[in-house]
Parts: sequence; C-alpha cells; structure tokens
Amino acid sequence: MPAVSGASDLFQLLRDGQPRTRTELADLFGVARSTVALRVEALMELGLVAPVDDAVSTGGRPSSRFALRTETKAVLGVDIGASHLRVGLTDLSGARLVDASRDLLVSEGPEAVLDTVAELGAELLQRAGRSADDLLAIGIGVPGPVEHSTGRPINPPIMPGWHGFDVPGYLHARFGVPVLVDNDVNVMSVGEREAAWPDVEDLIFVKVATGIGAGIICNGALLRGADGVAGDIGHIRVPRGADMLCRCGNYGCLEAVAAGPAVARKLQASGHAAEDSLGVVALVNQGDHEALQLVRQAGRDVGEVLSACLSMMNPAVIVIGGAMALTGEHFIAGVREVIYSRTMPLATQHLQIVQSASGLDAGVVGASMLAIQHALSPESIDGMLAGVSP
Amino acid sequence: MPAVSGASDLFQLLRDGQPRTRTELADLFGVARSTVALRVEALMELGLVAPVDDAVSTGGRPSSRFALRTETKAVLGVDIGASHLRVGLTDLSGARLVDASRDLLVSEGPEAVLDTVAELGAELLQRAGRSADDLLAIGIGVPGPVEHSTGRPINPPIMPGWHGFDVPGYLHARFGVPVLVDNDVNVMSVGEREAAWPDVEDLIFVKVATGIGAGIICNGALLRGADGVAGDIGHIRVPRGADMLCRCGNYGCLEAVAAGPAVARKLQASGHAAEDSLGVVALVNQGDHEALQLVRQAGRDVGEVLSACLSMMNPAVIVIGGAMALTGEHFIAGVREVIYSRTMPLATQHLQIVQSASGLDAGVVGASMLAIQHALSPESIDGMLAGVSP
Repeated sequence: MPAVSGASDLFQLLRDGQPRTRTELADLFGVARSTVALRVEALMELGLVAPVDDAVSTGGRPSSRFALRTETKAVLGVDIGASHLRVGLTDLSGARLVDASRDLLVSEGPEAVLDTVAELGAELLQRAGRSADDLLAIGIGVPGPVEHSTGRPINPPIMPGWHGFDVPGYLHARFGVPVLVDNDVNVMSVGEREAAWPDVEDLIFVKVATGIGAGIICNGALLRGADGVAGDIGHIRVPRGADMLCRCGNYGCLEAVAAGPAVARKLQASGHAAEDSLGVVALVNQGDHEALQLVRQAGRDVGEVLSACLSMMNPAVIVIGGAMALTGEHFIAGVREVIYSRTMPLATQHLQIVQSASGLDAGVVGASMLAIQHALSPESIDGMLAGVSP
Repeated sequence: MPAVSGASDLFQLLRDGQPRTRTELADLFGVARSTVALRVEALMELGLVAPVDDAVSTGGRPSSRFALRTETKAVLGVDIGASHLRVGLTDLSGARLVDASRDLLVSEGPEAVLDTVAELGAELLQRAGRSADDLLAIGIGVPGPVEHSTGRPINPPIMPGWHGFDVPGYLHARFGVPVLVDNDVNVMSVGEREAAWPDVEDLIFVKVATGIGAGIICNGALLRGADGVAGDIGHIRVPRGADMLCRCGNYGCLEAVAAGPAVARKLQASGHAAEDSLGVVALVNQGDHEALQLVRQAGRDVGEVLSACLSMMNPAVIVIGGAMALTGEHFIAGVREVIYSRTMPLATQHLQIVQSASGLDAGVVGASMLAIQHALSPESIDGMLAGVSP
C-alpha cells in the first residue's frame, strides 16, 4: 500500500509540530494533492494528526491545516531504583499527565516489581481518564546492565533474580504495547538532556551514588557501545585507590574510592553516623568539616577520571547527578578543580560542569522520552498504518 | 521544483547500488511512474544514475532498470603529513584510479603545500583521463586541529603559518568543488573503518607517532565533540609520567611518556642511534633488547589510557596505527597486557585490538571517503539538481 506507506514519511515531517496544508504537503513531497489527502486521512484515523483550529484567521471556515496531535495518546515512563519505583504518564510531547511512586526493593524480584509497575500504570491511565488503547509504549530504566536488543537485564549486581528476565515480554502481556528497557544511567542522561540541554549534541551524565556510572550522549544520540556497557566509568583505575579492593575484584576502581559507601565508611571509621550516600549528604549539609573534605576529595577522584573522558569525547556539558550530587557545590568543586588543572584548554573552554537539573525526576523523564521516540519512529508508525485502510 | 527535489530522495535510495525499475521506484515512493521518470531523467543528466546493462536477462530489449553510477565522477583524497603529501583520485565507489606522493614539509606553509596539492590533483585527473568537470569534491587530512565548520586549522602546533588559513577557499578557487578538511587522525579512522571494518559501529583508531591522538567512530559516525577536539588522548595523564614535562606545558601526559620521541630520547641516552619513531622501529626490527623493552612499556602506557577510554565507550575494535605501530606485536602486546588486566570483562569479551590494516594509505582512503560522503549527500545532490531542468 504505497500511499499509506508514504504516510509515515509525512508523519515524520509533521513531528516538528508545524501545521501544514494539503497543498504545502503535496509540494514538499512532490506528489499529487489527492495522494497527500489519503495519507493525512490514514494518520487522522490513528489519532496522530488532526486539523488545526485556526478558525480565527480563516474567518470561520473549517481549517485546512494539519498538525501532529500530541495530546490524544500517552506513554508510560518507569524508573526502577534499588529501593524505589517512580512512574509517570506523559503525552507525546513529553508533558506529564499524572505520576506516582512507591518504596519497593528491586531485590524482591522481577514479578513483584513489574506487577507493581502494571498496577500503578493502570491506576495512572484511569486517573488521567485514558483507556488502555491510548497507551502507545512503555519506557523503563533499571539499575543494572541491559542487553539492548532484548531488553533483558544481564548479570545485574544489585538485582537478584532479574538476570535474563524478559521484562518487555512480561509487561507486553499486560498492556499489549512495545516496552523499551535500558540501564538507569542511560535513561537519566536522555531525560536530563531533554529537560535541560535539548540543543546539546555531546553530553556526559554522571551518576554518583551507591555506584558510579555515566550515560553518554554523543553526536546527539545515546552511546551504548559494542556490548551495551558504554559509560561504565566506575571501574576505571584512579592512582589514589591502589590498595582499595572494589566489589568487582580489581583494586583501585573509582567506585571503590569515591562512591557514597566509600565516603560513608571513612566517616564511620572516625565515629560519624553515615550509613550511605544520603547520610554523607546530611553531614555535609550540617557543615561537618571531615564530611566536607571527604566529599571534595571524592569529587577530585571523579574529576580525575572525567578529565580523561573529556579529553577523549570533548563534551559540551558534564552533568553530575545521583545522591552524592545533592552535596551541591562541595562535590562539584572537587570535580572542577581537577578537570581544569588537567585538561587541555581547547577541550574545556566552553565546557559546563553542572549539577543535575531534573534531579530525582530524570529517570521518569528519560524513560518517557525513550518510549515516545520509539512510538513515533518510522517503524512504529508503519506498523500502526498497516492496520488502517488507505 | 518538487519533482526534481524528490530526485534527491530517489538518489539516496539508489546509493545502496541495487538497480530498480521506474515502476519499483514509483511503488517505493508512492508517486506516479511519470513523476519517477522525471526524477530519473534529472539524475541521468547529472551522470549520477544510468540504465543497467541487463540485456542478457531481458533478451536484448533496452534495460528498464536504473542504478547509481559510480565510475563517471571522481573525488580527490589528500593526506598532508608533517613531511609528506599523498594524493589519490577515486571514483564514487571509493575505488582508487591513480595516486601520487611527494616529500614535502607541512611547515613550508599553506600556499606552498596547497599549490603542490593542486598540481598533483590536476596531474592525476589527466593521468586518469578525466576532466575537471568530473571532479565532485576534495577531502583533506592535516596534522593538526581543524575547525569543522570552516575547515580552517586552529593553532596547529606543527603547522606554522596555517592557523586560520582558508584551506577550502584556496582549493575551491582552483577546482570549483567543495573541499572538506579534517584532522588527520579523524580522517585515518574513517579510512581504516572503510577499508577493514565497514560493519563496525564503534571503533577507536589510535595514531602513535611523533604525537598520540585518536579518531573515534561511535554509533557509526565520526565523533568530533563540542569543540572539534574529541580524541585528543595524548594529553591524558599517566601515573608513570608524573615528572615528565610535555610540550603542552603539563606534566605526565601520555604523549610525553609513550610517543616516538620519548622512546627515542631514552634510547639515545643509553648510546643508541634513534632519531625518531622510525629509528625506534629500526632498532626493534634488529631485535635490540632495550628498544623492545621500551616499546613494550610504551604500549603499556597507551594501554593504561585506552583502558579508561574503552570503559567509557565500549568499542568493538581498537586499531593501533602510526609509525610506532610498525613495531608490530611488541607495542600491541603492551597495550593488550594492560587493557585485559584493568578492564571489566563485559567490555573486553568481544574486543579486538589490532594493528592498522590500511597502514600509510589510511589517510588518503579516509579523505576520499569524506569527499564521497559529502558529494553524495542530499544537500550536494539538491545543489546539483538545482542546475538541471526537470
């Protein structure tokens, strides 16, 4: 069905949000106005395109301009953390309709966690007054490595029972829509870019919490790498950590030196009560001198690794997120101190090193973006059009 | 002129090399056969598309299938090194027609060098029996940083007189075609991928010679970074170099520790005659024990930096090129030794670490590829079509 398959290209053009007449579209594609009319009709039947209400400018005549319709359909963005679950329902422009969160241990296993995701998803659809038919896709971030082609977690250290679990299949059985799964830091980097740096092509998002990892956007796209483990910077060796054993079995990994638990352990050794990253943040906020010094040093260690990363990638922006970023300028000052002393001026002249703007919301925003990108991709639109008669 | 502007899309489709009939093209684009006929005609007028000779299969009737025509037009690939100039003329499939090289110091300045490029280019066109009209674009790699948007070298340390010089303008005045200029290592990484790893999406090409730099292909595209200096790994700090001053003014840079001159200086200090990288290579090939040890250690130092790079980028292939790679397995063994002991298994399980396959030819191959990619881009084809009546 050529006319309808051409509808997908027409849709991609309309994704810029600009309304166009049938004649304008016919000119842009070099096809007959009648062909365009068929394509527009197919997209309207799917609820993805609608006439624009410009009655005012045309004196009351029915509008002849058409545009992408973002508000009729929705996607679900899911952020699964070590001990929390956040879910948001957004429309196709990324605008949040409703959201919910739940304290829940990822270690309870995939069925328990994903059943809760399904329950919250259904609840959000209801609260927003949407039917299951309005849902186009689900995006999920999980705290571990994910095989990109299948969406299955691969040997995730803090997710017992999840290895190889068919996350997309499990939720597809409940909602009947495509399910995109990715590592949480990758998802957060997409969310942070969408929320704060939409025009930046090269960005590194670093999460510093119980572990350390990075999500890398280069040439405007998420970098997954050959085995899907790009951004695994927590196990790069830092000189200061030569005698520190990491949970990975190597000595001197950045994570063993500068992540939340490493700093918390040092504070405990000198009699402070700091269980984890948030305990460290609390001490910093109280102005504890030792906590300030240790957090600054952790920032320097992270800066050491990042200075190598930015010599290689030359990003425009480095965003520091995760619980340790809540210590604010103390941590970031350490990062900046090392980066500006170690890196060639040409690579840092326009560099911005900032705290995450979307904060704890980056996971849900990013997961929604993955779902929207997939839902509006040529492949998805072609699939939807296959069910429509031209 | 919509029909002709649609011709550009049609051309992009034909870039896969597969011949198609007008009817097949009409179906693929969802437009009338007569519209396709107009577009094909415009592309034939440009010499970019031609009927395929399949007289045998159709029993002698004139062919009705059309395909990309790669052999009628040509591009010039230019590799400018510190002390050499290599030029190749290739057709649009990248097949080399003729080439030439010249010993020439880049320090003689842009006019002297580019006049020689122009002279060799004209000579190659003549030798290949082509006219200036057959030339579509010129690609050039230079041994220094280049501002991507303008093609002008930016403070290149070993190219006195070239800072801010309008390389594209100078050669455009001679040949009247687009001129693409990029850093030599970027160009070599494109050439190496084209020649040896066409299906690999994530690759790091490392040149180890007088300096050390990398060309990075990620998600299938060259990474330039925010300021065009991605891949500048020669100034990442290595622990072993703490007291070694680099020409950049910092201490401990990889380049100050492991590039050709650093190794040559150590050999000189113990009474060997080694002027530069090639002197080191000669001693290694003679089996000199000290040279072997020093080259292996230089490999370890490069491996140290690369282990950080690959934790971040997770490439499928690391290619070692430049003069020091001519020491063969001795250097690469040092690289592998450190990478496999330092890096998480998930990032190295499928990794290949290899010597450059295209060797000294990578620069010309890559420069030709840049020129071909530009010449066949939608923008260029649109520009050419603007001069053709539909």
